[in-house]
Amino acid sequence: MAPTTHAHQITDLFAERARNLTPPTYGTELTKIVTVSFAYGLADPILFPHTDLAVASAAVLAEEAPIALNYGPPSDQLYEQIILRLQAKGITADRDRLIIGYGSGQILGLLPDVFIEPGNVVIVEGPTYLGAVGRFINAGAHLITIPVDELGMDVDALEVTLSNLKKQGIRPRFIYTIPTFHNPTGTTMPLFRRQKLVALAAEYGVLIVEDDAYSDLRFQGEAIPPLATLDKEGWVLYVNTFSKIIAPGIRLGWACGDPAIIERLAMFKSEGPVGPFVSHMVARYCATGKLDYHIQELIACYKHKCNLLLEAIAHEFPSDVVALRPGGGFYVWCKLPPHISAKALLIAASEHGVSFLPGTRCYANGQGDDAMRLAFSFQTTKKIVEGIATLGTVLREWQR
Amino acid sequence: MAPTTHAHQITDLFAERARNLTPPTYGTELTKIVTVSFAYGLADPILFPHTDLAVASAAVLAEEAPIALNYGPPSDQLYEQIILRLQAKGITADRDRLIIGYGSGQILGLLPDVFIEPGNVVIVEGPTYLGAVGRFINAGAHLITIPVDELGMDVDALEVTLSNLKKQGIRPRFIYTIPTFHNPTGTTMPLFRRQKLVALAAEYGVLIVEDDAYSDLRFQGEAIPPLATLDKEGWVLYVNTFSKIIAPGIRLGWACGDPAIIERLAMFKSEGPVGPFVSHMVARYCATGKLDYHIQELIACYKHKCNLLLEAIAHEFPSDVVALRPGGGFYVWCKLPPHISAKALLIAASEHGVSFLPGTRCYANGQGDDAMRLAFSFQTTKKIVEGIATLGTVLREWQR
Repeated sequence: MAPTTHAHQITDLFAERARNLTPPTYGTELTKIVTVSFAYGLADPILFPHTDLAVASAAVLAEEAPIALNYGPPSDQLYEQIILRLQAKGITADRDRLIIGYGSGQILGLLPDVFIEPGNVVIVEGPTYLGAVGRFINAGAHLITIPVDELGMDVDALEVTLSNLKKQGIRPRFIYTIPTFHNPTGTTMPLFRRQKLVALAAEYGVLIVEDDAYSDLRFQGEAIPPLATLDKEGWVLYVNTFSKIIAPGIRLGWACGDPAIIERLAMFKSEGPVGPFVSHMVARYCATGKLDYHIQELIACYKHKCNLLLEAIAHEFPSDVVALRPGGGFYVWCKLPPHISAKALLIAASEHGVSFLPGTRCYANGQGDDAMRLAFSFQTTKKIVEGIATLGTVLREWQR
Repeated sequence: MAPTTHAHQITDLFAERARNLTPPTYGTELTKIVTVSFAYGLADPILFPHTDLAVASAAVLAEEAPIALNYGPPSDQLYEQIILRLQAKGITADRDRLIIGYGSGQILGLLPDVFIEPGNVVIVEGPTYLGAVGRFINAGAHLITIPVDELGMDVDALEVTLSNLKKQGIRPRFIYTIPTFHNPTGTTMPLFRRQKLVALAAEYGVLIVEDDAYSDLRFQGEAIPPLATLDKEGWVLYVNTFSKIIAPGIRLGWACGDPAIIERLAMFKSEGPVGPFVSHMVARYCATGKLDYHIQELIACYKHKCNLLLEAIAHEFPSDVVALRPGGGFYVWCKLPPHISAKALLIAASEHGVSFLPGTRCYANGQGDDAMRLAFSFQTTKKIVEGIATLGTVLREWQR
């Protein structure tokens, strides 16, 4: 099958939306071999509970194969396990309020189908997780960015924005926020801001999409209630995932919220329910009760890596590079001094085999060249120390 | 979180496409308990290779967990195994021409994103697989139905349609066809029709979407080349799945075609690549070489069930019900005499605990009340005999 030489072209058949898309070039600008990557929030592969998952998989295939391998909905037990996890966070859930997807990313990717027509306003944080926000952009959303400070999203700035939009007759479709161990800044929104945020959502009739992917990975202190527990009127769609606490490669995430939203999300999830087999396997694993112990192991490991990264930064980076200490999660956010461009720094660092995520990859509005995100989750402790030493050398050269 | 009592309603935030969708009511019209269902093309649960999958799963989790459980693309070995399977059918494939999805259903569900703007013409068979075609309808496609006879799609009728459309300046986006062991009729398109179909696609510049889900389940005779092997210009997108030959519950299907299409499909598959874990598990299983032997077992079983169903029909049904003998696959299509409505028959049969798919569920244009699809794949041989006896009794009562 040679490429068509006919007068007709296959690409003529594409819908306009398909013709206008350009393939992502993400990461292709670095030509050097990266030996220490702080760029991506990959899980630490040493920590996967592969032995317990193997036990679960064997049990499912021995005892539940007729159901788990045929067409059908996800395991009832998985719904139950997710409902228990939500209850432990103070969130009331039942089947009608719950959808399970191939990672929380799939559910975030379905939001545009339900909520966004071209030109609709969506409010996002700056910086934010562009993996989700990029999909809102592709759907034609008009994004408004609310700044994030050390206490998460600036809800006073949000209030001004909502008020101004209302004066123009504009009602945003939703507010996408990561209130706990924010990606990329690691910050956590305190209770008073959460209360105000939820009150604003109800006042202005705007949905909050609460991405809570990292909240189980808390290094110290008490949990702050999710927005979903503060909301009495159903304005929060709560999104979470097994990717950070079990394994990303099983691809399971979920959302909990108003049944009308859940029903719509399910209708646009056009390939049908998530795979029965994997859902049965993960439900079996959760039902052993081992997951909470496993999460304690993850916390110990990621906390250690985070501390090591911050110590190395304190030792190796010039003092005008300011690292934010996260309360949990996968990331340390570093503000760079005015004379350093994150994009230029990345090119220089990659010459020495080190990469990170420049802040520009975390803003939908072009900002961020003054910051970088360092993911400590994936690298070994040895590589973390090496990589920060190398990055410190590059930074110090730029000081001169 | 009580339902909102605020002046604002969450449903106000829905995009028009979400507001206009109504939840499927599929199957809810039957209130009686069905004890023998011929309605759905479920796999026979006795036949799942669960022991071999357990071996594969254990090996992946013991040896490849760091890769198989993290973020990442599907297993390279799965691509290789699929490429080998395609080569065995005479189809040349490589990574650029291949996308793996959560079942072929996901890939068929992505076609509208790439090809359909509201009002675009899509050509389908009548009858056809509405699970796929329903998604084209939801995307606003203007469907044109080409009749299927004992030799599959009537390509002469297709030619007339294409010619008429061309005179109106209309170029259809694609032709959706199941040329081998057609769902629902079980018919197989002979080579001369395939050659003409592929020639028409090239002449009129229309993509063919070849859904080949059932072709490995051939009860007798030699395979007829897939459309994809006859096409020299890249006008065929070939779609297949592991659902019928391994297990639907693993959710793995694929498409092979022009790299420009594959690239677009991947961009609209917004949750990213299929799960690494399942892809590694299935690749391991395929690499054992056992799949081809397993398929021989499946063929023996499904052929036996098909013969049993046809014998029971010959014995139990009035002679004016005409059953088509399929060359393979999951389904027997029965034409009913003029005085019997399939929908009315279904209601009567369900009173006796038996269900099937009325032909109306297989046509996009409202036809089909004169036929029914009987799936023999899922039921035990005992239930097949029982169910057909019951259905025969109902039919004979209607004869009077």
